[in-house]
Amino acid sequence: MYQDRFFSPDPTIRDIARKLYQGCKKLPIFAPHGHVNPELFTDSKLRFGNPVELFVHPDHYVIRTFFANGISPHELGISPKEKFTNYDPREVWKVFCSNFYLFRAMPSGVWLTSSLREVFGIDEKISEATADLTYDTLIEKLASPEFTPRALFERFNIELLATTDSASDSLIHHQKIRLSGWQGNIIPTFRFDPLVHILNPVWLGQIEQLGSVTNTNITNFPTYINALKSQRLIFQKFGALATDFSAQSAHSEELSSFQANQIFQRALLGKADQLDADRFVAHMLMEMARMSTEDGLVMQFHAGIFRNHNQVLYDQYGADVGGDIPVKTEFTNNLLPLLTKFGNEKNFRMIIFTLDESTYSRELAPLAGHYPVLKLGPPWWFNDSVNGITRYLENVVEIAGLYKTAGFNDDTRGLCSIPARHDLWRRLSANWLAGLLVRHNIDE
Amino acid sequence: MYQDRFFSPDPTIRDIARKLYQGCKKLPIFAPHGHVNPELFTDSKLRFGNPVELFVHPDHYVIRTFFANGISPHELGISPKEKFTNYDPREVWKVFCSNFYLFRAMPSGVWLTSSLREVFGIDEKISEATADLTYDTLIEKLASPEFTPRALFERFNIELLATTDSASDSLIHHQKIRLSGWQGNIIPTFRFDPLVHILNPVWLGQIEQLGSVTNTNITNFPTYINALKSQRLIFQKFGALATDFSAQSAHSEELSSFQANQIFQRALLGKADQLDADRFVAHMLMEMARMSTEDGLVMQFHAGIFRNHNQVLYDQYGADVGGDIPVKTEFTNNLLPLLTKFGNEKNFRMIIFTLDESTYSRELAPLAGHYPVLKLGPPWWFNDSVNGITRYLENVVEIAGLYKTAGFNDDTRGLCSIPARHDLWRRLSANWLAGLLVRHNIDE
Amino acid sequence: MYQDRFFSPDPTIRDIARKLYQGCKKLPIFAPHGHVNPELFTDSKLRFGNPVELFVHPDHYVIRTFFANGISPHELGISPKEKFTNYDPREVWKVFCSNFYLFRAMPSGVWLTSSLREVFGIDEKISEATADLTYDTLIEKLASPEFTPRALFERFNIELLATTDSASDSLIHHQKIRLSGWQGNIIPTFRFDPLVHILNPVWLGQIEQLGSVTNTNITNFPTYINALKSQRLIFQKFGALATDFSAQSAHSEELSSFQANQIFQRALLGKADQLDADRFVAHMLMEMARMSTEDGLVMQFHAGIFRNHNQVLYDQYGADVGGDIPVKTEFTNNLLPLLTKFGNEKNFRMIIFTLDESTYSRELAPLAGHYPVLKLGPPWWFNDSVNGITRYLENVVEIAGLYKTAGFNDDTRGLCSIPARHDLWRRLSANWLAGLLVRHNIDE
Repeated sequence: MYQDRFFSPDPTIRDIARKLYQGCKKLPIFAPHGHVNPELFTDSKLRFGNPVELFVHPDHYVIRTFFANGISPHELGISPKEKFTNYDPREVWKVFCSNFYLFRAMPSGVWLTSSLREVFGIDEKISEATADLTYDTLIEKLASPEFTPRALFERFNIELLATTDSASDSLIHHQKIRLSGWQGNIIPTFRFDPLVHILNPVWLGQIEQLGSVTNTNITNFPTYINALKSQRLIFQKFGALATDFSAQSAHSEELSSFQANQIFQRALLGKADQLDADRFVAHMLMEMARMSTEDGLVMQFHAGIFRNHNQVLYDQYGADVGGDIPVKTEFTNNLLPLLTKFGNEKNFRMIIFTLDESTYSRELAPLAGHYPVLKLGPPWWFNDSVNGITRYLENVVEIAGLYKTAGFNDDTRGLCSIPARHDLWRRLSANWLAGLLVRHNIDE
Repeated sequence: MYQDRFFSPDPTIRDIARKLYQGCKKLPIFAPHGHVNPELFTDSKLRFGNPVELFVHPDHYVIRTFFANGISPHELGISPKEKFTNYDPREVWKVFCSNFYLFRAMPSGVWLTSSLREVFGIDEKISEATADLTYDTLIEKLASPEFTPRALFERFNIELLATTDSASDSLIHHQKIRLSGWQGNIIPTFRFDPLVHILNPVWLGQIEQLGSVTNTNITNFPTYINALKSQRLIFQKFGALATDFSAQSAHSEELSSFQANQIFQRALLGKADQLDADRFVAHMLMEMARMSTEDGLVMQFHAGIFRNHNQVLYDQYGADVGGDIPVKTEFTNNLLPLLTKFGNEKNFRMIIFTLDESTYSRELAPLAGHYPVLKLGPPWWFNDSVNGITRYLENVVEIAGLYKTAGFNDDTRGLCSIPARHDLWRRLSANWLAGLLVRHNIDE
Repeated sequence: MYQDRFFSPDPTIRDIARKLYQGCKKLPIFAPHGHVNPELFTDSKLRFGNPVELFVHPDHYVIRTFFANGISPHELGISPKEKFTNYDPREVWKVFCSNFYLFRAMPSGVWLTSSLREVFGIDEKISEATADLTYDTLIEKLASPEFTPRALFERFNIELLATTDSASDSLIHHQKIRLSGWQGNIIPTFRFDPLVHILNPVWLGQIEQLGSVTNTNITNFPTYINALKSQRLIFQKFGALATDFSAQSAHSEELSSFQANQIFQRALLGKADQLDADRFVAHMLMEMARMSTEDGLVMQFHAGIFRNHNQVLYDQYGADVGGDIPVKTEFTNNLLPLLTKFGNEKNFRMIIFTLDESTYSRELAPLAGHYPVLKLGPPWWFNDSVNGITRYLENVVEIAGLYKTAGFNDDTRGLCSIPARHDLWRRLSANWLAGLLVRHNIDE
């Protein structure tokens, strides 16, 4: 692959960008927010089964783009209701390769090409013609000891990998990793979503599971909060540094404990409505902040996504198959209650992510450029691309400053895409800094 | 005109852009969405009367910019109430030329300069000093057989020109074109607006006309829908490939047939209010989608424009004189009902246009990057400019992919601006692709 | 400092930009909107006390960035309740210098570096190591006659400086400047805010002061309006060319005189609520426009800022310490009443400023590109930066045209930053024009 890829073609920028990039390209990878399955690392003998399991099924970016162009999840081996079963991996790989041209000019194309070339040494152009060849190559490599998840983790020089785990999780995989004696630094992240979105069909089961793992009889709001608190401590024992939460709106609002409990009781009875759900989320944002001030976990907040927008697809295949769509998001008014109460705390750090780029210069950079507790998360999901990263840097840094951004995270489910994603960020950051230097906006 | 205009000054990008552009600059023009008057082509002897009729009166971009700078429609020969009459075209042309500097750095300047030079061979800088000379040149050329609308159509190498016609139109001009035996491929587009915006003063007359052209007694919602359906078939006989609709909001919502009919009845009686009008539009979006799944016409939807914002101007001169202003637009929630019902249909294609660029990366590219039925229309109206096209390509393609955009359309009323507008798109697309190649974001 | 700073590294653009910049860099400075304290110029002997008074205390950009990074206003010598007292200026200067790296890549860094170098000849890199040295240099220079406010004003070649003054101001400083015989052209601007935001704790006092300076007994809405009108005439006697007003929303709405007076009466009694306050602002926008059509003062309107978002900080230190955050803003619908009534007036000019960049291409450029009375103000506050200015030029000019923008204003409280800010605008405008020329979008 071309050594100067993604740099500006301007020779003065490119030369400086290359130099800056050389200085950081081999640094260890910190991956503080992602979705790799920790189970992969529980046993040194564990392997990826086949290329489809590696590159297609965990990647909702891939499923989404194929679906948008008329290729159903079924054709990718994703069975309605019983996922990931009863498919011929070679056939699915052929579908993938035949339609690989769809990823042209998309970040998925960059990551996939990069992973195949740099991790697996596959230099062939991916197409129908090379499908069998690349399938065989991948099968062979995946069977070898150099391509186990652990081996790849080490080869990728990952110094820290945070997974995302339901707040009700027993952390059994993290336990196994620790007990195995393997030294890979993999830590959990405390994901609130399944325990907070009270209309989600999984909510009640998650509450029960939270009660079970914490030995708590969760019958009301105070016992719920206490269970979350004690579970946070357990996550911290396994190295957790942060919590995470995703919501459609950034609305925060402190309810009275009586009100919070009323909603909680209605939710337990399955009688909560959308207004209840929204107010519960708003209140829980306050609780999350409060808990973070107490135990020091960084509070990550991803706002502005309408989950499972395609009801037909959701009914057939469930969540996380590419049917989530961003919505416009408001932070200045919505976060006012939270920031009024916790925005000036010494022992609190909150990282905000957005999919609404119009908020970069209008709300998020000014907020992070003022409140001590805030940092801005990197461009996320639809925006962690060449142009998306560039827009982020150009819109945010002048207003919030260099020291109020949170660095990069890859947010990926695909282990093999980690180096490619961090490499893209490093290249584009180097290129952006080079642009500042060349225009004498900063000095060396 | 400079051969490399609009390309990046970077030599590596410029050289590739030039090569790509050379490969497409002479390709035939497909103009699938525009507003050229089909009457121009009904008779081989038809000519444009004068330069004002050609370059000023049909161009609300021109009227708008002049108005904003203190030049009234009246000074442009547009009479209150009786439009386009009682003016001295040479005097109006002088006003146009004297104020031509206002178009500097605006796309109107690009299109007008390009049309005058490349279509009429006028190399003089347009100004008061050259007004008489250019007027005389244009008058002379317009009188010659090489400058009839048909001759220009052929010279421009237009392979397809879609006009925009009210759904109640008799298509008399399209009929005449067909009957004349001329081979120019001009097709109608089924424009819903005059039949759907029930508070528009023309609505009742349009309903009557629709009844008349379809031999229908339109007394209720079902007869109205049936008349539209049969009229769509007539449009298809004349080659129509698409419908078109423009609304302020993208809100879609299925009403019961009882509710839809109630609103329709109130509208017939002149008793509908704004809420009725909004709900009727929302329901008709559902009906348009349904009809498209039945007959295969592509559904074009232009959202987010506040029509006739300047009431004073509207009262004096009517619509389409430059007083329309965009508004912020929401798609993710508003289109949910429509996409839930029709978003996964095999035989349906919908093209969405926006004037709210903040929706590119936030809503429209993610929606088109997921739903099989959706494509994104090109940058439109205020945004079909050098920077507007570039922003579109940079914000949309990474997220939706190259294959979910609908190509270019010129949306113009001015026949002579068609080559200039397509040329601008081709140049900027070539330049954008060259940028991707140079950064090795895509391969050749 | 590098002579080509902020120009594109592309040699063809840079060479033209340099040439254009050379042609304008020494032109006199017009500063039609800013916040320099007029008192500074009332006496030829007046001097700046110390570097902190000059560079830290008046600059809420500086206070904001330090606060966001954990440095409290107190550490900057800003005392709760009794501002700007009881601090050791050398110690504060050390804090400032030690943390100067925070401004890297921010416009504050550009302005401060530029002011220190070009005004005071300080070439040392600002850091803890150079804090004492630079402090001593500045103290020495500030004591010399070449560095009085008047001397700096003359050296900066300022042809016009407009200050911002409460509508209730006696203009005593402006009077003194005139009486002193000094020729510096400093004029007041009629700032409505303290007299219009009825829930602001200072409002009642301001009304009393307005009554006092105009010899009016302000007991109702008509006497209030008359006092404002006569005070506008007094401002005009001192050269005022414009009014200014800032509000969170751009909502305009004409109330009946009865309604307006009812709200006014409730405000006098301290019984107005938020709805009253919002409707009063909406009505006063109409009144401001009406008064401008009568006396010819240009109406400046800054919309979309949530003042004193950080309640904790506000309670301790008051306003203008960096706790204001932008909000999304709507103009097309909100300004409809105002523009319907005054949008086509011959003797009215209104300049609009926004902090919501998504409105540039969507609303403001189309509005200014249509209504004769409107011009767009330059990028403001969070957006008067390298990228912010570039985005403004690229998003606005193609749609509104070159002649519908209002030129630059520095909006600064810091006298010494005036040349740096105008220089940045001149450089970036030259660079932007060079880009248009190189791409042959405009001719020379």
